[in-house]
Amino acid sequence: MDALSSLQADHDRLKTDIETTASFGAIEAESGRGRTVLAGTPANKSARDYFVSRLDDAGLDVTIDAIGNITGRWCPDSTDPDADPIAAGSHLDSVPEGGIFDGPLGVYAALEAVRTLQDAEIEPARPIDVVSFTEEEGQRFSDGLLGSSVAVGDRSVEGALALTDHEGTTLREALTEIGYDGTGLIDPAGWDGWFELHVEQDTVLETADVPVGVVTTITGIAHCHVSIAGEANHAGATPMGDRTDALAAAAEVVLAVESAANQLVADESESAVGTVGSLSVSPNATNVVPGEVSLGVDIRDVRYASIESLVETTKETLDQIERERGVETAIERPFDLQPRPMSDRLRTFAHDAAEALEIGAIDLHSGAAHDTMYIADVTDAALLFAPSRDGISHNPREYTDWADCTAAASVLAGAIGRAATE
Amino acid sequence: MDALSSLQADHDRLKTDIETTASFGAIEAESGRGRTVLAGTPANKSARDYFVSRLDDAGLDVTIDAIGNITGRWCPDSTDPDADPIAAGSHLDSVPEGGIFDGPLGVYAALEAVRTLQDAEIEPARPIDVVSFTEEEGQRFSDGLLGSSVAVGDRSVEGALALTDHEGTTLREALTEIGYDGTGLIDPAGWDGWFELHVEQDTVLETADVPVGVVTTITGIAHCHVSIAGEANHAGATPMGDRTDALAAAAEVVLAVESAANQLVADESESAVGTVGSLSVSPNATNVVPGEVSLGVDIRDVRYASIESLVETTKETLDQIERERGVETAIERPFDLQPRPMSDRLRTFAHDAAEALEIGAIDLHSGAAHDTMYIADVTDAALLFAPSRDGISHNPREYTDWADCTAAASVLAGAIGRAATE
Repeated sequence: MDALSSLQADHDRLKTDIETTASFGAIEAESGRGRTVLAGTPANKSARDYFVSRLDDAGLDVTIDAIGNITGRWCPDSTDPDADPIAAGSHLDSVPEGGIFDGPLGVYAALEAVRTLQDAEIEPARPIDVVSFTEEEGQRFSDGLLGSSVAVGDRSVEGALALTDHEGTTLREALTEIGYDGTGLIDPAGWDGWFELHVEQDTVLETADVPVGVVTTITGIAHCHVSIAGEANHAGATPMGDRTDALAAAAEVVLAVESAANQLVADESESAVGTVGSLSVSPNATNVVPGEVSLGVDIRDVRYASIESLVETTKETLDQIERERGVETAIERPFDLQPRPMSDRLRTFAHDAAEALEIGAIDLHSGAAHDTMYIADVTDAALLFAPSRDGISHNPREYTDWADCTAAASVLAGAIGRAATE
Repeated sequence: MDALSSLQADHDRLKTDIETTASFGAIEAESGRGRTVLAGTPANKSARDYFVSRLDDAGLDVTIDAIGNITGRWCPDSTDPDADPIAAGSHLDSVPEGGIFDGPLGVYAALEAVRTLQDAEIEPARPIDVVSFTEEEGQRFSDGLLGSSVAVGDRSVEGALALTDHEGTTLREALTEIGYDGTGLIDPAGWDGWFELHVEQDTVLETADVPVGVVTTITGIAHCHVSIAGEANHAGATPMGDRTDALAAAAEVVLAVESAANQLVADESESAVGTVGSLSVSPNATNVVPGEVSLGVDIRDVRYASIESLVETTKETLDQIERERGVETAIERPFDLQPRPMSDRLRTFAHDAAEALEIGAIDLHSGAAHDTMYIADVTDAALLFAPSRDGISHNPREYTDWADCTAAASVLAGAIGRAATE
C-alpha cells in the first residue's frame, strides 16, 4: 500500500486540461471565466475532441457509445481484461453561461488519476474506465443526466436519440453532426464501482476549510413544468377588473414555492430547496396583458417527503389561482428521482486515501443530482466534492482553487487505486 | 349637406381590404384570426404593398416619407391643392400574435371614407390624406408610436432610423430592405385636422350596444424598464438561505404593480391601469437560481397623477426588494406621455355624422395610446372607436362585427366630409 499512500496528482497537467476545455464555448464575463457548451454543439465537439486526444495521449482505448458517452479504458498487460472495471468521470457539457469546473474537473481528475497510477507504476487488478457522459446538464434535449440514464436502462437509446431541441433537431442528428454517434452502450451494472469528483456548488467545504467532501446521500429531485393560461389583451384598454393576467398569477406561484421551501427548511429539513428557475411569458410585450406563462420548478431534498410536500404546495397554489384569478393551469412532472445513498465501501476508500495523504476530508450530502445518481442504482457509487468559492456555480464566477483541484484529484487517484487493486 | 348626411361606406369593399391585409403575417390560432406584422418585415412589406395598390386604385397620389410613413392624397381638380388637408388613417403593423382589426380598420376605413366621398361626388375644399404610420405597436425598434412621434418632431428622423432591433438591424436597413425608405417627412402640424378610427379594445361600446365611440381624452402612458440583478446559482446545491433569487424578487414587483393599480381604481381613478407585460429571466434554466430579470411595466390613466403614483409604487417596491433580498435594481422610463384631450370641433363633426345616419355614438375615454396622441400635440385630432367583442385585442380573438366596421366607416366618412367641405 505504500505506492497507493503517496499518489500525487500533477497540478499543471490537470490545470492545463481544464483550462484548455474552458476555451471551448467560452463567453465574455464581467468576472470569472464562463462557457456555454450544450450537448451536440460545435463547442461540445471541440471539448470532446480534446478529451479523446488526451485519452489517446495516456494510452487509453477510446470507445463512443450509441448515446455519445465517451469511455477511455486503461487495461495494462498485467491486468485481467475480464475483471469488472472501476469507472470514474463526469461530463463535459455546461448550462448556458456556466462555469469551467462543473463537469470538466471530474472528467480530467479521473484521467489524471489514471495518469498518476501509471506514473506510480501501480498494477491494477481491474481495468479502469474514464468516462464522460452526454448532456448531464440537460439544457438542450432533456431534463438532464441523459447519458447516464440511458446507460442504466432508465431511458431507451431510441427514445433518447429521438429527443429534439427547440429547433426540432434530434439528439441523433446532433451527435451525427459532431461525429459522436457511436455504437453499443456502456454498462454501469458491469462496473465494480464508480467514482465522480465534482465541484461542491455550496459552501460547506469552504466554511470547514477542507479540500475534499465525501458525499453520504444525493438528494432526490423533482422537476415540474407548469403552464398558466390567462387572456392576452391590450394593457391600456383593459380595465384592471376585466383582466386574466397569466404573469400576475405566475408571480404568486414563484413566491409560493419560495415561501413553502423556506418553511420546510425552518420546520423540518434544512436541506430542502425549491426554485422556479425558468419562466417564459407570451406574448411578452410591455403593452400586452400576459396571456400565457410557463414555469420550470426544481425541488430537492435528502428526504423524499419534502419533495412530495413542495410539489403538493405547487399544486395547491395552482388550484388557488384557478379559483381566484380564473386562469387555467396544468402541471407535469417529467423528472423525479428518489434520494440516493452512496456506497460505504467506496467512501471508505476515499477517506483512507485522504488520511494517507493527510488531506482533510469531511462527509456531507449533495443537493445537486449528477450522473452518479443513476449509476448508484446499478452498482456501488461514490461522489467526491472539491470546494466552490462562495458556493457559486452555473455561473462564470464558479471557481475552485487549483491546489484544491489537485488535492481532490490525488484523493480520487488513491481511492480508485485502492478499489482497482483490491 | 344632403349628400354628406347619407354617406354609406361599402361593406364588402372595406371587408375585402381588411381580410386581404389579414393574410400577411397570418399565424395559426386556436380561435379567431391572428397575425404577426412587425415593422420592416416581409409581412409588413406585403401589407404596405397592398395598401399602396389600393391607394392607386382609388386614384390617390402616394408618397413615402423618410421614416416609411405612407400617404395617399385625394385632391380632385375642384379642390384647392394649397389648402391645409384633412388627414385620416392608422397603422398596418401588429403586436406579435395580434389581431386583424387593430390598425388596418383605421387605415382602410379612412381609404373607404375617401372612396365613399368620391362615389357621392362630394367636392372637398381641402385635400384629404390617407395615412399609415410606421411601427405604431413598437415591438421591434421602439416603444411604439414611432412614425407619428417623428412626424410631429418629438423624435429626430436620424435618431429613429438608427434604432436597432434585437439582432442589431437598424430601422433604416429594414425600411431599405422592404423598399419603404422614402424622402421628406409628413407634417401633421400643417393638417387642418386628423381623424383615426380604431377598435375600442374594451367593452364600453359592446355593453352600451352602439357601433361608434367618440373619444374625449386619451390616457397618459408611462413605460418603465426594470432590471433586477441577483446571483445565478445551482438550484440544488444552494441552500434557501444563501440565495439572491432575481425572479422571486421580480414576482414581488409584478404583484405590487397589480395591487397598487387595483387600489387606485378602487380609491381614486376607475381608468387607472398598471401592467407588467414583459418579463425575461437569465439564464432561464429550471435548475439554475435566476440571476437576472428584466421587466416592462405599462402604466396609464386619464389623470397624470395616477401615473406618477404607480411609477412611485414601482420604485418603492424596488427599494424594498433591494433592502430585503439583497438584489440590485435599476429603472428607466423611456416613454412618458401626458393625457391628451381630443378636438371638440372634430368630435362634433363625428357626432353630427352619426346623428344624420341614425347610428348610435357615445363619448368615452381611450386607454390605448394610438398615433392620434402625438398628432393631437400639433393639430386638432379626433379618435373614433368601433366595438371590440369581449374587449379583446392584441390577440387572434380580437373581433369587430363587419356591420359595426361599416357603420363606423360611414360615420368617419361623414365626419371627414364635413371637415373637408367646411
